[in-house]
Formats: sequence, C-alpha cells, structure tokens
Amino acid sequence: MQIKALTFDVFGTVVDWRASVIREVEAVLAPKGIELDWAGFADRWRAGYFPAMTPVRRGERPFATIDVLHREILDQLLAEDGVTGLAEAEIDHLNRAWHRLDPWPDAAEGMRRLKQRFILASLSNGNVALIVAMARHGALPWDAILGGDVVRAYKPHADSYDGAARLLQLDPSECLMVAAHPFDLKAAAGRGMRTAYVHRPLEQGPGREAERPAPGTFDYQVDSFIELAEALGA
Amino acid sequence: MQIKALTFDVFGTVVDWRASVIREVEAVLAPKGIELDWAGFADRWRAGYFPAMTPVRRGERPFATIDVLHREILDQLLAEDGVTGLAEAEIDHLNRAWHRLDPWPDAAEGMRRLKQRFILASLSNGNVALIVAMARHGALPWDAILGGDVVRAYKPHADSYDGAARLLQLDPSECLMVAAHPFDLKAAAGRGMRTAYVHRPLEQGPGREAERPAPGTFDYQVDSFIELAEALGA
Repeated sequence: MQIKALTFDVFGTVVDWRASVIREVEAVLAPKGIELDWAGFADRWRAGYFPAMTPVRRGERPFATIDVLHREILDQLLAEDGVTGLAEAEIDHLNRAWHRLDPWPDAAEGMRRLKQRFILASLSNGNVALIVAMARHGALPWDAILGGDVVRAYKPHADSYDGAARLLQLDPSECLMVAAHPFDLKAAAGRGMRTAYVHRPLEQGPGREAERPAPGTFDYQVDSFIELAEALGA
Repeated sequence: MQIKALTFDVFGTVVDWRASVIREVEAVLAPKGIELDWAGFADRWRAGYFPAMTPVRRGERPFATIDVLHREILDQLLAEDGVTGLAEAEIDHLNRAWHRLDPWPDAAEGMRRLKQRFILASLSNGNVALIVAMARHGALPWDAILGGDVVRAYKPHADSYDGAARLLQLDPSECLMVAAHPFDLKAAAGRGMRTAYVHRPLEQGPGREAERPAPGTFDYQVDSFIELAEALGA
C-alpha cells in the first residue's frame, strides 16, 4: 500500500521541549527572584510525564489531558522546591510553557514540503488546545490534530494508533509514523503502520545523545524532516 | 469574555456543496451515457442528509460517519434512478464528491485573515477524513477539525458544541459559531456560544435565497467571511 498520511509524534520529534521549557520556566520565575536549576526543573517535569499517564493507560484513572497531568507535576515540583506565592494565573501561564515549545530548526520547512504530497497529522499525547497553540506559535501546518483527547488514549496504547488510522479512514499501512522514540515506532509498527525514525541528538540536552537504532530497524531513518521529505520524494 | 476561536459550520457556510456536487455527479455519470437531472440529484442527496442523522442523534443507531450516511443515500438514489453497472471504486469516488467541494469565493481569503487573530476550527457534522480532504482541495487553513467523528455527535445536539469548546479548552462564550443556518446558530447560542450569521443566497441554487434573519437575531450578520473579518477587526 502507498503511504498517504504521516502521523507525527510531537514532543521531542517536532519540537525541542527541553530548551523551550528551560527558557519558559526561567522567564516566569527568575524575575521573581527565584533561583533554581532551570534545566533540572525541565528534566524533572518531563520525567513526571510518563508515570502520570500510566494510570490512565491502565484504565485505573479516567482520561485526563496532558495539560491536567502537567499541572499536577508542576504543583508538586513547585512544592518540592519551596516556590510559593505565585498567583493562579502565573502558575497557569507557566503550565502552558508546553503550548509555546519551539520547533526544531528543520521542522516547519520539512512539514511544508511533506504537506504537498501527504496528509500531516499530529499523533501526540498532547491535547488539542495544546497542539493548536503550539502550531500557531511555530507555524506548523497540520492537516489534522489526532491523539490525546481526540482518541482519549495515550501512546503506546494501541487505541492511539488505531484511532488515528480510523479517523483518517486509512489502512494503518497507509500511515507513516514519524518519531524520535523507538518505543513509539515499535508500537505503531505493531498496529500495522510504517515507521520513520528521526534522530534528535539534543532532545535530552547536550551530551545526552540517544543511541541510533540499528540500520533496518525502521522503514526510514533520517536526521531531519528535510531528509525525510527527500527520502519520500516530497 | 473575549472571542478566542471561531467554530465554523462547513456545508453551505464555507463551501458551495450544491454546485460542486452537481459538477461531480455529472463528471462521473455523464461519460457513461447516463442522463439525469444533475441538480435534482444533488438536491435529493442533500435532502437525505438530515433524516439519515436523526436516528444517530436520537441514540437509536450507533454513530456512523457522514461518509457512511452519504453512501447509504447514494446507493438508494442510484437504485431509484435505475443506475446500474458502476464499479465499487466508481461509486466510492462518487460518494467522495463531498470531499471535493469548492469553497465560496470569499472563504479561503477570509479565513486566512481571520486566522491571524483567532483559532479557526471546523464544527461540521462531516468526518475528519472528509474535512481534511476538502481543506486540501480548497486551501482552507483550519487550526483544528472538530465535530463529526471527533465528538461522535451530530449538530444540533448539544454534545457537538460542548465537545468543541471542551477540546479547545475555552468557555463557550469565547467561541463564535459561524454558520449560514439559523438552526445551527440557535443551538450554539443555547450552549453559550456567540453567533455570526453568514448569508449564502446561492446555497440552495438560483432563485431559492433564504430569508435573512431579523436584525439583532445573532451577534453578527454578514455577507461574507471578508465582511466578518472586518467586523471582528481581523
């Protein structure tokens, strides 16, 4: 079957969550005279993300959006670090740091090229409002926003991938999952999708480059969305 | 509250379904030597749309997409008109006439202006795959595709409007429903949304212009998306 749609992981694959969150946390807290390890704060916030989704994925907790989960983790981190006295509007603005993540330098241009030939859908755990705000912030030309609170399931649960293909009315084999994370691509492949690994050496910060998958692990393996467009003839 | 998002009805409001379906039906059937009243066929197809949604809206039938409902109506019309011998791929292509509807002349330009200032979401009964295909066909710059199989409810059911506001994480009063159909706007207003009526005199064909609502019935009343952009300062 021919590839008709590209479904993208977003955090880490399309956008540089870490550098953006570091910047946003410092921008909110530093002017208040608060001094923290900004990078460490960003890493701890992100580290809380997978455990927070687990009860939802297991059906032990009703569906809650990533915005809600991010906020719970944030409240806990602020308490741990003894940060007090923030107004509710300030904490909400800080929580929406994840709405203001910058794309990797190649992302918007690569997507514009890929869009000429393929349907582009986000298949992120992020909720619609978050992905919409981020797209407007970074000029990301999505055709459709899927995942998260659209399918009310969290990757790598099968419902995420199945729901995206169903809403696009495509066979899974007509969908190419694009991600910087092997666990996501393996789950997508398990549901019949094709896979493109994008290497993002700076996702976890300098000096923490992920190991490249062995050649042949995925259908495509590239270093940027531009390279992906070239590989796909777009 | 300030308006943050515009939620659009699509069939008749953004796109000229009638002229487009007439063209598409003729393009598929005329080369096969079939002669029908093309405009009448389009009108009958559209006339079947509301009755087809009713059992779903009433909970008497599990959710089925507009593509499925359109196909059921189409099969019945072809049988009524004695059209036989079409291949499955031809009938499917014909059914996807609704994926290839042309925007009204002002629609894409007006949306591009409105998008500078507001989030633009489709709030159509159309399914995601249909609205995505139509957007790519007509260069419609949606931020998000809602309604239809995203919320699994059909307007004017309250769940359609409530679900859209929920996914956008907005208070309904921050959403402006844009439609050419008073029933849709009244239902949206009943859920707390603001309303903009767009007059589309040719929706039902020449000589069948809808009556304009009395002034003051809706928050805005305009003749095009350009005029709406001007009224909203976009």
